[in-house]
Amino acid sequence: MSNPFFKNHGPLKISVVIKSLELNKNSLNKDEEIKDIKDLHSSSEDDITFFHSKKYKDFAHKTKASFCLTTEPLKKELPQNCTPIVVDNVLVSTSKITSLFYPDSINDNFDETATLINDTHFKDKVIFGKNVLIGKNVLIGENCKIGHNTIIEKNVIIGDNCSLGSNNIIRNTLIKNNVKILDNCVIGKHGFGFFPNNNKNLRYPHIGVVLIEDNCEIGCSATIDRGSMSNTIIGKNTYLDNQIHIAHNVKIGENSIIAGQVGIAGSSIIGNNVKIGGQAGISGHLNIGDNVEIGGGSGVVRDIPDNTKVMGYPAKKIREFLRDNR
Amino acid sequence: MSNPFFKNHGPLKISVVIKSLELNKNSLNKDEEIKDIKDLHSSSEDDITFFHSKKYKDFAHKTKASFCLTTEPLKKELPQNCTPIVVDNVLVSTSKITSLFYPDSINDNFDETATLINDTHFKDKVIFGKNVLIGKNVLIGENCKIGHNTIIEKNVIIGDNCSLGSNNIIRNTLIKNNVKILDNCVIGKHGFGFFPNNNKNLRYPHIGVVLIEDNCEIGCSATIDRGSMSNTIIGKNTYLDNQIHIAHNVKIGENSIIAGQVGIAGSSIIGNNVKIGGQAGISGHLNIGDNVEIGGGSGVVRDIPDNTKVMGYPAKKIREFLRDNR
Amino acid sequence: MSNPFFKNHGPLKISVVIKSLELNKNSLNKDEEIKDIKDLHSSSEDDITFFHSKKYKDFAHKTKASFCLTTEPLKKELPQNCTPIVVDNVLVSTSKITSLFYPDSINDNFDETATLINDTHFKDKVIFGKNVLIGKNVLIGENCKIGHNTIIEKNVIIGDNCSLGSNNIIRNTLIKNNVKILDNCVIGKHGFGFFPNNNKNLRYPHIGVVLIEDNCEIGCSATIDRGSMSNTIIGKNTYLDNQIHIAHNVKIGENSIIAGQVGIAGSSIIGNNVKIGGQAGISGHLNIGDNVEIGGGSGVVRDIPDNTKVMGYPAKKIREFLRDNR
Repeated sequence: MSNPFFKNHGPLKISVVIKSLELNKNSLNKDEEIKDIKDLHSSSEDDITFFHSKKYKDFAHKTKASFCLTTEPLKKELPQNCTPIVVDNVLVSTSKITSLFYPDSINDNFDETATLINDTHFKDKVIFGKNVLIGKNVLIGENCKIGHNTIIEKNVIIGDNCSLGSNNIIRNTLIKNNVKILDNCVIGKHGFGFFPNNNKNLRYPHIGVVLIEDNCEIGCSATIDRGSMSNTIIGKNTYLDNQIHIAHNVKIGENSIIAGQVGIAGSSIIGNNVKIGGQAGISGHLNIGDNVEIGGGSGVVRDIPDNTKVMGYPAKKIREFLRDNR
Repeated sequence: MSNPFFKNHGPLKISVVIKSLELNKNSLNKDEEIKDIKDLHSSSEDDITFFHSKKYKDFAHKTKASFCLTTEPLKKELPQNCTPIVVDNVLVSTSKITSLFYPDSINDNFDETATLINDTHFKDKVIFGKNVLIGKNVLIGENCKIGHNTIIEKNVIIGDNCSLGSNNIIRNTLIKNNVKILDNCVIGKHGFGFFPNNNKNLRYPHIGVVLIEDNCEIGCSATIDRGSMSNTIIGKNTYLDNQIHIAHNVKIGENSIIAGQVGIAGSSIIGNNVKIGGQAGISGHLNIGDNVEIGGGSGVVRDIPDNTKVMGYPAKKIREFLRDNR
Repeated sequence: MSNPFFKNHGPLKISVVIKSLELNKNSLNKDEEIKDIKDLHSSSEDDITFFHSKKYKDFAHKTKASFCLTTEPLKKELPQNCTPIVVDNVLVSTSKITSLFYPDSINDNFDETATLINDTHFKDKVIFGKNVLIGKNVLIGENCKIGHNTIIEKNVIIGDNCSLGSNNIIRNTLIKNNVKILDNCVIGKHGFGFFPNNNKNLRYPHIGVVLIEDNCEIGCSATIDRGSMSNTIIGKNTYLDNQIHIAHNVKIGENSIIAGQVGIAGSSIIGNNVKIGGQAGISGHLNIGDNVEIGGGSGVVRDIPDNTKVMGYPAKKIREFLRDNR
């Protein structure tokens, strides 16, 4: 969907799709072809979509998808053009079907296609250290440096004037211009997303990328996971200190400053001009507004509106925090 | 003791053992041979043991060891078959004697025996990246992948169908089947265990291993230390996110899920089906029961019974946490 | 100033210095030469200094510098021998001028001068692993080991009997004798210091080093940043566990013990015999006295006097913490 890198193995016949779910739906036209799996909002009539929570009712009413994975109670919300496929667990079924369309997005084994940069055409263009490896489907702009032992795995586009340090591992990532990445980072690996299942958890696909905008700096030993159904984004001129963990689907705005050892859990959205102190943690699926300041060590478990300073665990307005801790 | 890898340099004469402690014990038969040093419970009659706290009185009463490092007040608890050797600091003396039996377990220098995988018989069996190194005493099962720059140092056994990423360093570790280890991990190094001593701390031996059971996933940039007198264990189908630190002797059960940047201090025991949120910390020597859920950012400083949800610092029952932070 | 490694590009004409600030100061003798930029206290008559806060008034009264970057309200505090140069933002101007004298101290690109150790004279002196790289201006003492893939970048001095593990990256660092550095560390990189500026932050120079004293141990995956205008120091026989972040200008005393995942923010000073529990965080610019104990998970936001035990977030005396959390 949002990843220019993963090959879509569709179109697939709906019969193949149904079969993967181990359902029995004789009423479906088994030869109909499906091009892709998308969310309710972005699906077109050749797609299959999924609908697992009442929260998305309004999107469901208007979806253009021809098929929808859903539950018995929710199926009545779908429009006439959309055939419901009732399943026990919508997200597990979505995961299974996404992996049919994008089988490469689950397997995050090391990139066997990576070869020494000296054996590629980049050797004349890039300033590079010893033992630098480059995978398939990589583009690198003008005036870039890549440090020793760094591995640019498959599916990476790097802009101009970028400086990458040593011992980094990068895949499925778009890096714009004037970006600096220090040492020892792992960027673009799949996130910590799976369906818990006794004896053998079930990984779901990560078909998003990591997008690092112009003028960013990423400190040493960062881990930035790529998105699952959307992208992980670091906005323009945002600086990350050392040992930061950014989970899948997180989006950080522009001109933000994030100090050492901060962790941001999956799918949270951080605004512009945000300052986050060292070791702060932000729970998943939160909205942090523009111009927010989060004190070091804070644990943020609720949304924070624009122009607010917070501190504490759970984080509260800084005035309250200071009053409560006099 | 529990490590199949470290060579036991015993049997040693008891006179050699005593000499290392700089004691004067003329009454001992100096030619008697000692095979090993073990804890009170697992010692047999050829072994020396140690007894440093009243807590272990019941084990002391029944020990089969012939000798026991202990203190003046505790020595009366030992049975007739066991000769007490009174020392100032039982743990320091235990450390000294363990290092006589297992000298390699203190020295954690880089593994000089590691050679390029291309020069070993593994080259025909394993799918591997560039610059992969393999040390002595390594076994690897069927259908495994090892990524670029990964160093399998000495004393590692890997099962079938394992996928290791790039830039990992692994030693003294048993990895079962279907295990996935992402990138940049250090697994099997000695723990942060030593006797503080002005000007020069005294390291104690780590003769345990790391044991990673079937179907586990270890995220990027994890550090998992091997055990000192027992093993560090990650149970079946347990998943660890990025940047997690697991200290020596920790045992984690099956089907547990541990989010990013969590730290678990030495010798704590975590049950089955446990969920731990991001950045939570668990103090040393605790028991965390089965089906426990620990909220992100929590600091756990007490044991937690089965089926309990906790949050906060110090962590308390989640209902109390929510009530106190309304 | 405090870094023996960075080449000082001075003396520079004061006209060149002024020009870099885009000021217009016709009254200055444009040919006068300036040797260096130093703080108020250590400047001599050939130097330029900076004065940005009333706090430093006493030092300002006695400075020997010939020129001083300062503000309109502060300039009256300077002595006759010192010509004020009034600027909008003293620290930004100081940064610009420091980068004139020390251009290499901003650029922290990977070290292109690093070559395989086998091609240097160290090959006969050091015990080393595969793929070890050594940069310019490196000295290594007797009886040292350097593990696989470790990169000793330019400007590093290592004493005797040091054991470095694998995958480390070290630059601008002085390591004394009997120091042990485990695996995966990044030591001596510039700190997270810059002037926030929309669209493009302005990095300030880091001309300090990291100094690691005798008998220290640095755990796996540490990041220790070098100082900006002073040094980052780890005192004698201090031990750091895994995944610790030490920011620029931090100074830690002797015989201290710091557990896993601790973070210490910029310019804080930690005393001797200090114990810090796992995941604790210490804010910037604090003074932590001798014999202090900080509980695991604490967030320290104020100075702590000698011989104090604290815990909590914000950290308070441990007796209060226990009372408040009964």
